[in-house]
Amino acid sequence: MTNWKTSITDAHNKIRQHIRETPVIMLENFIDNTNVELKLEQFQHTGSFKVRGAFNAIISKTVPNKSVTAASGGNHGAAVAYASSMLEYKCNIFVPNISNPAKIELIKKTGVQPNIVKGNFSDALNESLKFVKQSNSISIHAYDDKDIISGQGTLFKEWEEQGLSSETMLIAVGGGGLISGALAWFGNNKKIVSVEPENSCALYKALQNNSPLDVEVSGIAADALGAKKIGSHCFDLAKQKNFVSVLVTDESIKDAQKFLWNTLRIAVEPAGATSIAAILSGAYKPDKNERISALICGANFKLDFC
Amino acid sequence: MTNWKTSITDAHNKIRQHIRETPVIMLENFIDNTNVELKLEQFQHTGSFKVRGAFNAIISKTVPNKSVTAASGGNHGAAVAYASSMLEYKCNIFVPNISNPAKIELIKKTGVQPNIVKGNFSDALNESLKFVKQSNSISIHAYDDKDIISGQGTLFKEWEEQGLSSETMLIAVGGGGLISGALAWFGNNKKIVSVEPENSCALYKALQNNSPLDVEVSGIAADALGAKKIGSHCFDLAKQKNFVSVLVTDESIKDAQKFLWNTLRIAVEPAGATSIAAILSGAYKPDKNERISALICGANFKLDFC
Repeated sequence: MTNWKTSITDAHNKIRQHIRETPVIMLENFIDNTNVELKLEQFQHTGSFKVRGAFNAIISKTVPNKSVTAASGGNHGAAVAYASSMLEYKCNIFVPNISNPAKIELIKKTGVQPNIVKGNFSDALNESLKFVKQSNSISIHAYDDKDIISGQGTLFKEWEEQGLSSETMLIAVGGGGLISGALAWFGNNKKIVSVEPENSCALYKALQNNSPLDVEVSGIAADALGAKKIGSHCFDLAKQKNFVSVLVTDESIKDAQKFLWNTLRIAVEPAGATSIAAILSGAYKPDKNERISALICGANFKLDFC
Repeated sequence: MTNWKTSITDAHNKIRQHIRETPVIMLENFIDNTNVELKLEQFQHTGSFKVRGAFNAIISKTVPNKSVTAASGGNHGAAVAYASSMLEYKCNIFVPNISNPAKIELIKKTGVQPNIVKGNFSDALNESLKFVKQSNSISIHAYDDKDIISGQGTLFKEWEEQGLSSETMLIAVGGGGLISGALAWFGNNKKIVSVEPENSCALYKALQNNSPLDVEVSGIAADALGAKKIGSHCFDLAKQKNFVSVLVTDESIKDAQKFLWNTLRIAVEPAGATSIAAILSGAYKPDKNERISALICGANFKLDFC
């Protein structure tokens, strides 16, 4: 059985010099008289938490040929490309041609030229696995991997060290790597609320089904949260008692993006506003005086003047 | 002679419950191998530091009729409107019709209906002064006022309490209220670098002239930094020895806006990127190992999806 606390602490020691300690802000009466503590992880290198896992995976794994490979048209691809580039590893990213152009651009900015694959994510994944077999590279999974989860877990260790005081934390979920880091670090000491778009909700459906299954994904946050199947580690970790799963609509995610800008001048991609959408829409209703925190996880979109 | 340290400490006690403690972030090798400490004051209520001064002025002054007035088409107007609304004062904001529509909108959002005056800032100011005479209201100046300066000074006291470690701090300057707060708080204990757009540089020209004078203002940051004359308090405070004044171009401000988004996912108005423009453009060249901080002061522009 994994000793997650040790594994996350080790990960933090390995990656600390490569990542940014991202700021937190305490907002009193932020939403409907509710105080909300935010961690602004969109300020992390490559604009999302994903580099924490990427650095830890590359540093922790045996990589015979100093060559790593990932299939991703999004934040994971950019993170693996950035971490490889900083650590001077060879890197091969396989990207479906339907990906968000801003995210393909982000991969290119790290100096890695992505392999564009005609089709969807599965096609890109198949090409990447073929390449791994032929080339003695290793594949870095986007979420269902202990090193990735331990890397994402460093975010919650860091937040605790910064004085986190909430009882309850809301986190957006795609494949479950990030929330696994939270569940692994906090155990039952904090209530963890999983927030998924209703049209991309692999964890919610797996919990209903009592086992991970393939789901259809679509909607405005799908390029970040649209995992077709929840990770097996996440599914196991989510069985702890202090856990809640809620869903939000695309409309409420858009409203949350607007709210974050209008009230706080935080500009985020849809996935980055998803945790806040649960409070604004009432999908999660805190008790009176319940101390709430929410993670802002990413901001990779094209700003009009950039 | 003003005891600024006492005055700023008093201001902090008065306004603390009304303002946000804004986060700081330490960025290693952020610009050309230079470490930069940022304070993200654009997350303050109404999207700029201006509410600090507005709250302190309204609370500190004798306001016979609970009625305050300001002439401003920008961040000061929004700040006075917001603070009045929170403190339940009557508020009259006179806005030139050439103002940035996003900023007029911001004033309206506080619940205050601005008086739109045909013409430029001087016309709005004249109308506001007429109104003050007729109505037994008091006028809140945007920058050349001890209560305003003490309010802005709380930002630097707060930053010091958060562990500020830099030797040198870069600050964008318009009328000089904000940098006066820094000069008043730090005295000669820190090198303060004033950064102005070359087409809106009332402080730079006053220093050359050895006395404040009216200047022409234009350019992309003029709706926040375009004061026609530097404040007399600011001019006096800027005479201390540990002070440097530099200029930047509009082009370098635009580059800094892009840089802040692409490297850190911080979206700011031109004034908010002006301090960073001085480092990026080389207008201020830090020594090797010089510990630098820069203030991000505002982010009031219209985001395309909001």
